[in-house]
Amino acid sequence: MTLVLHGYWRSSTSYRVRIALNLKGLPWIYESVSLVKDGGEHKTAAFAAMNPQKLVPVLDADGTMLTQSLAIVEYLEETYPSPPLLPTTASERAKVRALALVVACEIHPLSNLRVLSHLTNELGLAASAKDEWYRHWVREGMHAVEAMLAGSQDTGAFCHGEAPTLADVCLVPQVYNAQRYKIDLAPYPTIERIYAACLALPAFADASPENQPDAIQ
Amino acid sequence: MTLVLHGYWRSSTSYRVRIALNLKGLPWIYESVSLVKDGGEHKTAAFAAMNPQKLVPVLDADGTMLTQSLAIVEYLEETYPSPPLLPTTASERAKVRALALVVACEIHPLSNLRVLSHLTNELGLAASAKDEWYRHWVREGMHAVEAMLAGSQDTGAFCHGEAPTLADVCLVPQVYNAQRYKIDLAPYPTIERIYAACLALPAFADASPENQPDAIQ
Repeated sequence: MTLVLHGYWRSSTSYRVRIALNLKGLPWIYESVSLVKDGGEHKTAAFAAMNPQKLVPVLDADGTMLTQSLAIVEYLEETYPSPPLLPTTASERAKVRALALVVACEIHPLSNLRVLSHLTNELGLAASAKDEWYRHWVREGMHAVEAMLAGSQDTGAFCHGEAPTLADVCLVPQVYNAQRYKIDLAPYPTIERIYAACLALPAFADASPENQPDAIQ
Repeated sequence: MTLVLHGYWRSSTSYRVRIALNLKGLPWIYESVSLVKDGGEHKTAAFAAMNPQKLVPVLDADGTMLTQSLAIVEYLEETYPSPPLLPTTASERAKVRALALVVACEIHPLSNLRVLSHLTNELGLAASAKDEWYRHWVREGMHAVEAMLAGSQDTGAFCHGEAPTLADVCLVPQVYNAQRYKIDLAPYPTIERIYAACLALPAFADASPENQPDAIQ
């Protein structure tokens, strides 16, 4: 199967899919979709034909256009089960998915580029108020994730046990993003420890934004 | 297994889980967690001990506390596979999950109670500006879902084929919510048609907010 990832270097959701592809050891081709050039290449008719949501990432799997990063990772998990990104029992799988969904539903949607742009461009918020909005929701979410991780015996070197899962796939891009906004990670020692453990793995390091061909330094 | 749902009548995410439980034909006990009484029962230490995210819903499955509505529905799907809420092939499952995730990651996080309260209470937005924010993100998301549904041969009486799936489980509470805010559904004829088909089923009707014991009319 030929896998083509249409994404953007700084997009957290594209970053999730890059990590998952690398953890699965799959070869993939990268097609950059700039979110900033000419008002955003994701807003063009050509891109909308591929994904009516006009959002990256899209994974083209032999012509099947897969959208929504978590759906893409679940697809990869079902299609290429080894190494697994989800544990084996239903309750453990639910726990890992819940950690991933705190990031995907409670933090990222409130702190991504299109929402931050809307706050300043449409609501006329000052840059400082926009940054405060960002930090508020990221801290709320990080606080929840830290409590879940610190309070669970399942937490190991990674979010769940001794190998990366879907939870780490979602957490790392969010922490990367938080660092860009200079959020102090000291209140989240478990997250900080797991983040470092992930970045030490080539699958995560190779997926990082600055290592993508479309990165603007 | 004894299933106890800690939720709130008007919470869209609680509504999702109620629908899924009903579609699976499972008996469940309802424990109301008021999001408005005394500043919110979900913010108490007692509730945080059950879920550090301080969010409803929580599904107590014989003492295992499951959080995040989509993780809960996936747990139910794995534990009680019949009737299925996901199709059989990986690419079809990805499509259904993507529809669910557009609602769960692109619409609901921007339009739920805590975010709307933050806009007015912390950012000082006028009620009219808050409502416009709500309508903006709901319309963006609905537009995407409508395009996905209208453009797919897999769309049937429901979001995917002739029986409800995870996509319908997420779509119906969002449409219910949109109607509260008087969003015109005319631009989304496929969504409107599927919404009506769902509400005609007892599993959906019994799960609706006004039919819960904690509903305030």
